[in-house]
Amino acid sequence: MEPKIESELKKLLIKSQVLSHQSALSGLTPETSLYDAVDYHLSNPGSGARMSLSLAASLALDISPDKAAHLAAAVESLHNASLIQDDLQDRDDLRRGKPAVWKKFGPDLAINATDLLLSNAYALVANIDGVSSVQQLISTMHQAVVKTLQGQMKDLSRNQSESITEGIAIAADKSGPLFSLSLQLPLILAGHEDYVDLAGETGSLFGVGYQIFDDIQDLSKDRFAGNHFNLAQLVNEKGLSGTTGITGRRIWLTLTWHRP
Amino acid sequence: MEPKIESELKKLLIKSQVLSHQSALSGLTPETSLYDAVDYHLSNPGSGARMSLSLAASLALDISPDKAAHLAAAVESLHNASLIQDDLQDRDDLRRGKPAVWKKFGPDLAINATDLLLSNAYALVANIDGVSSVQQLISTMHQAVVKTLQGQMKDLSRNQSESITEGIAIAADKSGPLFSLSLQLPLILAGHEDYVDLAGETGSLFGVGYQIFDDIQDLSKDRFAGNHFNLAQLVNEKGLSGTTGITGRRIWLTLTWHRP
Repeated sequence: MEPKIESELKKLLIKSQVLSHQSALSGLTPETSLYDAVDYHLSNPGSGARMSLSLAASLALDISPDKAAHLAAAVESLHNASLIQDDLQDRDDLRRGKPAVWKKFGPDLAINATDLLLSNAYALVANIDGVSSVQQLISTMHQAVVKTLQGQMKDLSRNQSESITEGIAIAADKSGPLFSLSLQLPLILAGHEDYVDLAGETGSLFGVGYQIFDDIQDLSKDRFAGNHFNLAQLVNEKGLSGTTGITGRRIWLTLTWHRP
Repeated sequence: MEPKIESELKKLLIKSQVLSHQSALSGLTPETSLYDAVDYHLSNPGSGARMSLSLAASLALDISPDKAAHLAAAVESLHNASLIQDDLQDRDDLRRGKPAVWKKFGPDLAINATDLLLSNAYALVANIDGVSSVQQLISTMHQAVVKTLQGQMKDLSRNQSESITEGIAIAADKSGPLFSLSLQLPLILAGHEDYVDLAGETGSLFGVGYQIFDDIQDLSKDRFAGNHFNLAQLVNEKGLSGTTGITGRRIWLTLTWHRP
């Protein structure tokens, strides 16, 4: 990636992160438990993989920085909603090295914070000025939410002895839709609706790759100890490395797996 | 109300109910637990008070039946999301005389069904053809969701010995926003954005009145046995009756309280 684009991406990533955080808090009364729980979770951000993918797609499609930030912030809001809920449902104590929202604030607040962030994602897209495709953006977001919820239910109901094929299918269902959405929203906004299905498939594969990469990183971390199903455990290998990016019209993910 | 309008309202109420139900299921895979849980809850509908209010407002504002049904179905979807979540958080075993979703399908499914219905409400509004105010409709919906979530947190954290003033304030926070929204969405769609704040206040009062009425009806029913805070218990009186309706530009709620 060209240095100029990379620097632009980094700036936009921070802008999107701030927008996602501030918009979530904007309607809440400060010094209430819901405000504190949402603020707590968003003050400890992750790597921003989905935002980066969305922003890179937006820049490649000549979408203005402000619009690009709103789309990325919306995807991030959905992602954070899914994390708070996953941690509650999986009873994972830690998220990004700190107590998960349900562990610190209790299940009721984790449930309400999830709703808030889910709803906030729609408000972020509705707040983009001068966009004619709001309706399709929102319909596509809803489809991604439905798929993620179905994937999460499969994830909760499976057993630990499944094959790698099944593990990958679940990762595609659960992690794929938000990666797909990261590409689909910029494509819709830029008027390239024909590519939405293709972006859906790409995002799904991207989600699987990312999940493997993420699970491998987790091998030495907190989540490994939990009841979390871990693709990396199935791969039984630590020698995997991955790079992702966008070049021109191509979106790529490279996973390199070194057999011992 | 004129008989012709009343018959039109009844037809639209059924249409909206069906739309709210079918749209919620449309993206889900049949014979999965999430599909079954959502279908189970929506197959046992309530009185449709919020839908009726929304439809009556839409008819009074000359909004087409199809658009009116989408707005009402969206409000109903939010309402059902809040019911499934309330039952889980309050550990109420019964809803409308049957086991609540969390009781029948477990907490994880209640949480995911809530997300699905919340998200579906936005999709319903996004699917209205030829509307220029989608962005404001969605922003206003999000504000109602935020207020409802904050009201729910207050409701969960209060103690049972509160005064009637506090009880009414909580009812206004928790039940008010969706009644307000029932009026606000038709007003926005019809281009009467100036009335949105006033409709918000009206809806809030309406919510308090409805909550008192509902709690009184509950006195002899299932929820009275639970840990539910009940305004009617505070009023300590069974002689309350209520009527609601829309006449021209006026929306009214009459509560009559007969002291013994």
